[in-house]
Amino acid sequence: MNSINTFSQLSDKENKNHHPSFTDKNFKGPQAFIDFIYPEVRFPPKELYKILGEEKIRYMVKYHHDLLAKTKVGRLFPKDKAKFDETVEKATDFYVQALGGEHIFTDKYGEPHLRSRHFVASIDEKDKEIWLQVFKKVLKDIDFPIEYRKPFWEWIEALSIRMINRRTTFEAPKRVPYDKE
Amino acid sequence: MNSINTFSQLSDKENKNHHPSFTDKNFKGPQAFIDFIYPEVRFPPKELYKILGEEKIRYMVKYHHDLLAKTKVGRLFPKDKAKFDETVEKATDFYVQALGGEHIFTDKYGEPHLRSRHFVASIDEKDKEIWLQVFKKVLKDIDFPIEYRKPFWEWIEALSIRMINRRTTFEAPKRVPYDKE
Repeated sequence: MNSINTFSQLSDKENKNHHPSFTDKNFKGPQAFIDFIYPEVRFPPKELYKILGEEKIRYMVKYHHDLLAKTKVGRLFPKDKAKFDETVEKATDFYVQALGGEHIFTDKYGEPHLRSRHFVASIDEKDKEIWLQVFKKVLKDIDFPIEYRKPFWEWIEALSIRMINRRTTFEAPKRVPYDKE
Repeated sequence: MNSINTFSQLSDKENKNHHPSFTDKNFKGPQAFIDFIYPEVRFPPKELYKILGEEKIRYMVKYHHDLLAKTKVGRLFPKDKAKFDETVEKATDFYVQALGGEHIFTDKYGEPHLRSRHFVASIDEKDKEIWLQVFKKVLKDIDFPIEYRKPFWEWIEALSIRMINRRTTFEAPKRVPYDKE
């Protein structure tokens, strides 16, 4: 995936041999730019709820959070065990509903608006990479059905980018295509 | 300035009566979006260096930093006095050169790339507002030449938006048009 997904990449390409310099007398100032394009998010097939079953979804989300807690991302979770469990529970409600289960998330919390909900935590590109990397291990360890891994991955991969609200580099967040391994 | 400056505002307007809901069976997932458009930055007239003089520029930058140090933005500056002075010195070099003085910034540090240089610090919309608000007081207090305030303001106003690297809201950062008061 070396495609251009930011306007700044595009203008870098255009200006390859003519990068404006601050020392250039004729330089009027930097152009308008956008940071990067948050990609479209496509939900995975709704039958996943029946195929996985609520118990396995619950296990998956809990396992993901338990592993994350041991990484840099863990700083974002409550230290208190009961509060941590609540966080996992809330996330589980979201996954259950997103994968085709009952409306247990929206009944309690309203629309997901996950980006907005995460503004309270500072989430950078590295956090997103770790989150996704750990999810990869989870899918393998819990024996997630092979035939649904690609659409599931493409969902969470695009979704994870939306949570980034702290930028630490000019480069667009790395896309992580599905990989059978 | 109620103009549309994000693609998400545009799509909100388009979807006014048809906002997709997570609970809608036909909802495939959220669309691609960009956060907001970082506006073009136009330098103020180069004669400002001669009009203000290096001493006044130095005073302006020092005064701005001293006032900022007493705000929430102050957390981003070094606590050590000598290191704080170095920070002010470096900023001053930038202003001197940007306003038409010698190349004292680029000779020491290379291209400004201010956004990149600030990635190390977490700067949100509120920090940007404070930074700008304090600058407004500075211009008044130092008796910045009235006839150059507008282009100077338009420069720093656009420039300040570029430093934002931590988002805490879906709304585009507030534009602050020049105000004679």
